[in-house]
Amino acid sequence: MERTYKTQMEAAKMGIVTPEMKIVAQKEYRTEEEIREWVAKGQVAICANKNHKCLNPEGVGSMLRTKINVNLGVSRDCKDYNVEMKKVQGDTMPFRRKLTSECPAMIGTVPVYDAVIHYQRDLATLSARDLIDVVRLHAEDGVDFVTLHCGITRHTIDQIKKHKRKMNIVSRGGSLIFAWMCMTGNENPFYEYYDEILDICREYDVTISLGDACRPGCLADAGDVCQIEELVKLGELTKRAWEKDVQVMVEGPGHMPMDQIEANMKIQQSICMGAPFYVLGPLVTDIAPGYDHITSAIGGAIAAASGAAFLCYVTPAEHLALPNVDDVKQGIIASKIAAHAADIAKKIPHAMDRDNAMGDARRTFRWDDQWAVSIDPETAKAIRDSRAPEHDDTCSMCGKFCAVRSMNKALEGEYIDIL
Amino acid sequence: MERTYKTQMEAAKMGIVTPEMKIVAQKEYRTEEEIREWVAKGQVAICANKNHKCLNPEGVGSMLRTKINVNLGVSRDCKDYNVEMKKVQGDTMPFRRKLTSECPAMIGTVPVYDAVIHYQRDLATLSARDLIDVVRLHAEDGVDFVTLHCGITRHTIDQIKKHKRKMNIVSRGGSLIFAWMCMTGNENPFYEYYDEILDICREYDVTISLGDACRPGCLADAGDVCQIEELVKLGELTKRAWEKDVQVMVEGPGHMPMDQIEANMKIQQSICMGAPFYVLGPLVTDIAPGYDHITSAIGGAIAAASGAAFLCYVTPAEHLALPNVDDVKQGIIASKIAAHAADIAKKIPHAMDRDNAMGDARRTFRWDDQWAVSIDPETAKAIRDSRAPEHDDTCSMCGKFCAVRSMNKALEGEYIDIL
Repeated sequence: MERTYKTQMEAAKMGIVTPEMKIVAQKEYRTEEEIREWVAKGQVAICANKNHKCLNPEGVGSMLRTKINVNLGVSRDCKDYNVEMKKVQGDTMPFRRKLTSECPAMIGTVPVYDAVIHYQRDLATLSARDLIDVVRLHAEDGVDFVTLHCGITRHTIDQIKKHKRKMNIVSRGGSLIFAWMCMTGNENPFYEYYDEILDICREYDVTISLGDACRPGCLADAGDVCQIEELVKLGELTKRAWEKDVQVMVEGPGHMPMDQIEANMKIQQSICMGAPFYVLGPLVTDIAPGYDHITSAIGGAIAAASGAAFLCYVTPAEHLALPNVDDVKQGIIASKIAAHAADIAKKIPHAMDRDNAMGDARRTFRWDDQWAVSIDPETAKAIRDSRAPEHDDTCSMCGKFCAVRSMNKALEGEYIDIL
Repeated sequence: MERTYKTQMEAAKMGIVTPEMKIVAQKEYRTEEEIREWVAKGQVAICANKNHKCLNPEGVGSMLRTKINVNLGVSRDCKDYNVEMKKVQGDTMPFRRKLTSECPAMIGTVPVYDAVIHYQRDLATLSARDLIDVVRLHAEDGVDFVTLHCGITRHTIDQIKKHKRKMNIVSRGGSLIFAWMCMTGNENPFYEYYDEILDICREYDVTISLGDACRPGCLADAGDVCQIEELVKLGELTKRAWEKDVQVMVEGPGHMPMDQIEANMKIQQSICMGAPFYVLGPLVTDIAPGYDHITSAIGGAIAAASGAAFLCYVTPAEHLALPNVDDVKQGIIASKIAAHAADIAKKIPHAMDRDNAMGDARRTFRWDDQWAVSIDPETAKAIRDSRAPEHDDTCSMCGKFCAVRSMNKALEGEYIDIL
């Protein structure tokens, strides 16, 4: 059956509950009507390219479970990296098509990264047309959301020079657009030809993730005029996208002191009219290279609890090297913890079910039931098994001093042996 | 020269600036008079037993740099553990005395843990007198602060039975006192003979860390009547201690949803009249065994930013096994990150200096200067070196796509080669 609508947002505005909305409603313990209404208003994005046939759809919005993003890719310096290389083989197209034909998770790309690789020509030689054509290519390939740094303009060049940030621009895509503008003298094509981009995205139902070129790259740059001016521009671009029924997410934070995070989330919600906020980190200190999955988990949990809908994971290798498989795992788990902690704080329906099951399993020393509800059962079990206790009703941390054991005995009126 | 005062608090009330206050003032970029006034009011504790001669004193208070605590000890199940055993050798006294004669950090103990080991008799056979004598022994040995679970009473037995918490009591010391009360039928000696304990602590200037027996052991138990009723009792006991010039810290949280943390910190500040709050975690989810240093870093950062003064570290082995050396390292670093992030949020003087230096070093690719201000330089350097890049002005994460490199070139008007 041919779809009578172009995008999830258009359907929602027409009063249609799409199959994707039904699935999201079920996953989120919400009514289909709630989901439809939020999609119509742009407060929930269901990133679902019509060409991504195997997609298991998810909704992204502050009232739904917080979602996390994982980055994949290659770097010239790590071309021997088996895992990443197996996936990409030097060209991005086969990898992208394989993902959208086999991977049920929603897929996002940053087309400007790919332009240089796709054309095998250096940045300065690419035309505005070349850059827009890459967006179309990704849309045709079934990508669910594209990060486009539409919010910086030639005016940003003056702003960055004038305000002397400590870290200038640390967004990779943003820096490429900035450099392209500097080298060619032209306006940012993703801003100048935004209407054409909207037409492409409408055609395939690609969600635009409005990139934040000016996200702060250190605590000192957080919340400055460069960041907030771009956010205002992203609010305008959000409105223009919604007028064409194109779904939008807005990208944000980076490095930011804890006390600024909540205010940032609230300002984004008002300026961008509730469009889902997709944040990197935030990293709450600059001095913990090797542990930025932790600095990000702190910031991400606060951000999500204050309204962010989507967390971009950060690995322990951030600022240092291309992450290896273990770094990726550590980054994913830290992000999952942050997202889950925020869901509990936001009182997302059923968010605390597993925590409650864990409490019951701990009180009764049902170790297998503890693993069953753990975020990473293998690691938890391995730690316990590596230093197994004398008695099954304790662990080797406290031995017979175990508080849970003492309390279980005390409440049963039993004698408590400790020596 | 003989001291004319018994405790730091007494001195402060008399208008005396002690040598310890001078050192704390210098470390914290505060005036001596500010420190003296806070100590007089009980809002800063300088835990400094007069017998701990080699102490390098620190102040604990919400307006000072957040401090972190590290736990050491043995467990029967891990008696082969070289590192811990080397320190303790099966008896706690030599370890304790070695620490207070050689270790410049402030030392805290939980005397009730030690009672069973010290007397080599099981819990039910110990008298109230035995338990109080252990406190005196620790005071004589130079311990700077003792955790005493003074806030639970026989009434708590009824409360715990009536309110059917999921995890009952998970405080180890608290559970021992609870079990002792159940087995002997007596009142909690640390409550019943509190005045005698105050006299001991006054004599040596031992700070009492008022233990929170009823801290929640899972999210579901957070903020319940058992926890808050004990907190009210701890407020009363704080007042009684201050009347005898005995310094106090109050212990708190445990497992707690993120959205309850700030309110808990504020309530403690009002009920305990600004006494320094010493919190475990808080752990913001129950389902991440193996990663509870991260769940605690999230909660600890929020707690410290909201007023907690002292964070008890949690290791990845929490709930599973006695931590090994690497677990301890991971726990310390996660706590340091949480404390530092909170100090920045609280605008503690000079808290952001190292972060600012990091930003400058990153922008200019001065890698050695990055390591110099890192929380764990070795780990950061090792990650970079393990996957070294082609060019020194990048890392292997982004290679020539590096945003910092692109921006440096763009702002200098240079051509940016990426291919």
